[in-house]
Amino acid sequence: MITIEEKFAKLGVDNAPGQEVRLKSVDAGLAGGPVPGVRVDFSHGDVNAFPPLPCTIDLFCEGFRLGAEQAYTEYRGKRSLCDALAQKLAAFTGAPVSADSELILTPGTQGALFLAMGANIVRGDKVAIVEPDYFANRKLVEFFEGELCPVPMNYFEAGEGAGLNLERLEETFRDGVKLFLFSTPNNPTGAVYSERELRAIAGLANKYGVKIICDELYARQIFDGRPYVHLRSLGLMDPENLMTIMGPSKTESASGFRLGAAFGSAAMISRMEKLQAVVSLRAAGYCQAVLGSWFSEPEEWMRQRVAAHQQIRDDLVGEFRRIPGCMVRPTEGGSYLFPRMPKLKVEMQDFVSALRIQANVTVTPGTEFGPYTDSFRINFSQDRQAAVDAVRRIAQMVERYRAE
Amino acid sequence: MITIEEKFAKLGVDNAPGQEVRLKSVDAGLAGGPVPGVRVDFSHGDVNAFPPLPCTIDLFCEGFRLGAEQAYTEYRGKRSLCDALAQKLAAFTGAPVSADSELILTPGTQGALFLAMGANIVRGDKVAIVEPDYFANRKLVEFFEGELCPVPMNYFEAGEGAGLNLERLEETFRDGVKLFLFSTPNNPTGAVYSERELRAIAGLANKYGVKIICDELYARQIFDGRPYVHLRSLGLMDPENLMTIMGPSKTESASGFRLGAAFGSAAMISRMEKLQAVVSLRAAGYCQAVLGSWFSEPEEWMRQRVAAHQQIRDDLVGEFRRIPGCMVRPTEGGSYLFPRMPKLKVEMQDFVSALRIQANVTVTPGTEFGPYTDSFRINFSQDRQAAVDAVRRIAQMVERYRAE
Repeated sequence: MITIEEKFAKLGVDNAPGQEVRLKSVDAGLAGGPVPGVRVDFSHGDVNAFPPLPCTIDLFCEGFRLGAEQAYTEYRGKRSLCDALAQKLAAFTGAPVSADSELILTPGTQGALFLAMGANIVRGDKVAIVEPDYFANRKLVEFFEGELCPVPMNYFEAGEGAGLNLERLEETFRDGVKLFLFSTPNNPTGAVYSERELRAIAGLANKYGVKIICDELYARQIFDGRPYVHLRSLGLMDPENLMTIMGPSKTESASGFRLGAAFGSAAMISRMEKLQAVVSLRAAGYCQAVLGSWFSEPEEWMRQRVAAHQQIRDDLVGEFRRIPGCMVRPTEGGSYLFPRMPKLKVEMQDFVSALRIQANVTVTPGTEFGPYTDSFRINFSQDRQAAVDAVRRIAQMVERYRAE
Repeated sequence: MITIEEKFAKLGVDNAPGQEVRLKSVDAGLAGGPVPGVRVDFSHGDVNAFPPLPCTIDLFCEGFRLGAEQAYTEYRGKRSLCDALAQKLAAFTGAPVSADSELILTPGTQGALFLAMGANIVRGDKVAIVEPDYFANRKLVEFFEGELCPVPMNYFEAGEGAGLNLERLEETFRDGVKLFLFSTPNNPTGAVYSERELRAIAGLANKYGVKIICDELYARQIFDGRPYVHLRSLGLMDPENLMTIMGPSKTESASGFRLGAAFGSAAMISRMEKLQAVVSLRAAGYCQAVLGSWFSEPEEWMRQRVAAHQQIRDDLVGEFRRIPGCMVRPTEGGSYLFPRMPKLKVEMQDFVSALRIQANVTVTPGTEFGPYTDSFRINFSQDRQAAVDAVRRIAQMVERYRAE
């Protein structure tokens, strides 16, 4: 029998984004002195550089003034907000959403992911996840005692689409996978799945009766006018086997309110509500009021926000490509880059520590996302100049630690 | 192997407080017409009748203006807030709390409870809970696939203290219980555990190596100048085996912000943080700022709030005692009453529905708290006159449905 200590040993948080403040400083093995510059924390977006819509705080205060009816909502979220949001999400994703039975508001998109996984995984269930993908995916499967079936995404070799290995995906499905979770745009690479890939995924899900959780957290920030396809819009899957997850924490910068949404299968939503009832009851009632502005942003505000991120992407991709031996796939959607470094004379974990200590730059080691000992992730939703300068410092550090 | 549907079948939410809005109206079996009056929802407190401190919204807005540093805190909560809160919680509960290792901020007290249970229960573990106690306790044990060991609290027969059956508690401990969870003041009865009971619990926990989660959510609202003893203040237990849970959702009426705190065992806090990282990352960052006012309320504000609730308790206990055959134990702490009704000619579940449909009064059926088919719970943190009128309507309804 597994002990609680063994169960939690797999759930490390020390290197998780935002937790670096808890790391002890290790000076051993550092080469050279500081590479000074303004501190940049690439582990998450900077809401000072890209703040939420100004009206969010007003909506929050209105919710607070509403009092009891806003403080104590149904566990799945305030009905009037759900009614409006179901229509907006249906319009955005191209398939109907019932406010009554197919939508739940959650504490952040993380909350939606936790509930969706908890509402589907029974211990021993085989669960397919993508490598690389969001670092919590693996931990969730492990927490719920599912069996991990990783499927590689060959993001550097993809001719078209994200580069998911569909043959390997089918093998895992044939081998008994019950649930498949993936993000598009992909976290950490910013790769967007093509319609061909999504059709193949849906076809395999139908063939083998696999349920799908589709994390579309960054679906509103697509670059270069590229087409973005919502799996649910294709109408190829039984809607009861599909859950889609979104939230206003990224492009919309509302992470401080902890809001997310999951929509799809009524049976799954019903189980997710039961789980939410014991996890945290509901997304903070007053915070829910902020969702009134979601998908109602001024068009020009959203256009500018996406354009500004595309510009930063271009700048940073240019900077990384100037580093000899560094490979980077330009982000197609979202705010992440996942550059692969040339061979270094220190472990990536130590290089990441050195970046933080010597260059005032925080990045997230690639091993959080799968077996990527030569890569790290950055969230480039930052002040543009500060981000460019920080990547130039990374370049200096690469030279300092480059393998002979 | 259990299926996901079987696992969730035990986690009903239809009768959970606040979910009544989702119940379908059932008119069958209703006797007589409406008993009109202002709607009172006793399933939770009314923050319109007892609002949060006015400064809470200002603190929230200040947190929002702080931006990034408030939006993205450590998973266990913003360090400066934890530093201040650890001192306040230590002073209140009479034992030290390390801000660095022994405290975590959570999305509501429910969040603290979920994390504490999830960080301690491995499937198959025997877990002792009290009957009656908070309805989520049982569900949490079931969700984490522990084995429930209920211990009765004879709240009507207690000469002193809450009336926990200590002999039965020792039997369950001797039988292999790993974890014991209880609330003081007790939810739903408002009974406060005596120092004698707490000493006995600590002694048994030490003797059998049992870990304890002590839910003190209502510990700041104690009536009649009664002594209240914090289990952790006794210094009888290994601090690594004890977790205490509190939050500002009840007496302080800050439920709409979803804030809670757990403090104690550093090993448990470490696991709880790992779990929080995949459940919802953190309590909403901007909401955390509201904790600046917690335990810093004007003394007179707190005094008046407790006195006002004591007055409502007195009024309602008087009203219930006017109903022939009704038994009620006066609340010693918190805002709950758990009256036992005389024999009715309908099931309690149907009586509760009739109260809602005919008398505009929402109560929570006793079966949510254990095998209590003759009782219901009310939260009397309500407008005083509305609450008195509502209990008078309950009295009319009891006569209408009283068994011949």
